[in-house]
Amino acid sequence: MHTPLIDDLIAAFRVLPGVGAKSAQRMAYALLERDRKGGLRLAQALQTAMEKVGHCQQCRTFSETELCRICASPKRNSQLICVVESPADIAVIEQAGVFDGRYFVLMGRLSPIDGIGPDELALPQLEACLKEGGVVELILATNPTVEGEATAHYVMQIAKQHSVRVSRLAQGIPLGGELEYLDSGTLTQAFIARKEV
Amino acid sequence: MHTPLIDDLIAAFRVLPGVGAKSAQRMAYALLERDRKGGLRLAQALQTAMEKVGHCQQCRTFSETELCRICASPKRNSQLICVVESPADIAVIEQAGVFDGRYFVLMGRLSPIDGIGPDELALPQLEACLKEGGVVELILATNPTVEGEATAHYVMQIAKQHSVRVSRLAQGIPLGGELEYLDSGTLTQAFIARKEV
Repeated sequence: MHTPLIDDLIAAFRVLPGVGAKSAQRMAYALLERDRKGGLRLAQALQTAMEKVGHCQQCRTFSETELCRICASPKRNSQLICVVESPADIAVIEQAGVFDGRYFVLMGRLSPIDGIGPDELALPQLEACLKEGGVVELILATNPTVEGEATAHYVMQIAKQHSVRVSRLAQGIPLGGELEYLDSGTLTQAFIARKEV
Repeated sequence: MHTPLIDDLIAAFRVLPGVGAKSAQRMAYALLERDRKGGLRLAQALQTAMEKVGHCQQCRTFSETELCRICASPKRNSQLICVVESPADIAVIEQAGVFDGRYFVLMGRLSPIDGIGPDELALPQLEACLKEGGVVELILATNPTVEGEATAHYVMQIAKQHSVRVSRLAQGIPLGGELEYLDSGTLTQAFIARKEV
């Protein structure tokens, strides 16, 4: 029903997460009707980012420079390394402002079915860094999913081999959460890890 | 917190309808992490569409050729013209397969406050077409909003000057709708326009 170019555009929009046929069509028409300049700007930003954004040599997060801002900063505590699954996790943690150490980004999680093993997550690189010394504690901040837990367990064993202290983010009731709507897994964790007050 | 290029990309995504700060970030990271090829394809499709998609000389819908597929088709009934606000409306009507005439796309609706008058909607072009003769009926399919109704009223008067029959899409209860959840405006229309059975 659409013209070939509009069909192409609608199909291309569907690579975005959470965008189905209907929203893709809405996006295409909105830009064509009301904001072609914004569309061109988006095209340019996309192309530049897809081609130019690389990875930090040290922590593997996205970076346009050899070292990312955090790894390059002398203010960050290099004795603490927080292991996360993706660069988006760093953004959330930085926003909380609770951590002043450095990061190591796995860019995924162990998932043998999908062919993602320790090498794909650059775990040898993390191990080399621990071997060098200087790291006192490794904080495991992978997601509390089956794969995330398996990944955390694997990284923990590497750290123990090099006598580095390892911790895992606490699990429990989220702030502002209501018991009534909590899943039983979280509630179980909260009971098991309850603290005397 | 992000790198400058990622910041640019996130800002650029916000031109899309329904995309706020959080979804824009999610889209940027999803493409960077998992589908750079898809991202480049989207950049290319966007650029081509923004630059190459023009308007049909006859009905004003989006088209890469001088006449759109519908205006160029000898199978369509040229005695009927359906007036719609945007090209997306054509897509919906064509999907229903209920109409075999041609269209005229206003590319907007009358809105004096925003400086959108009859000239911006190319109404003189529509009038010239009616003057030429050959059009038997004009079907007004603008949206049932205040501006849409005002636009329909204005177009109706043009058509009457040229003795062309004018109709407006029926209003009432949508198929599969439940009375319980219907707004009172629609319900009022449904009562007023009730039909003896």
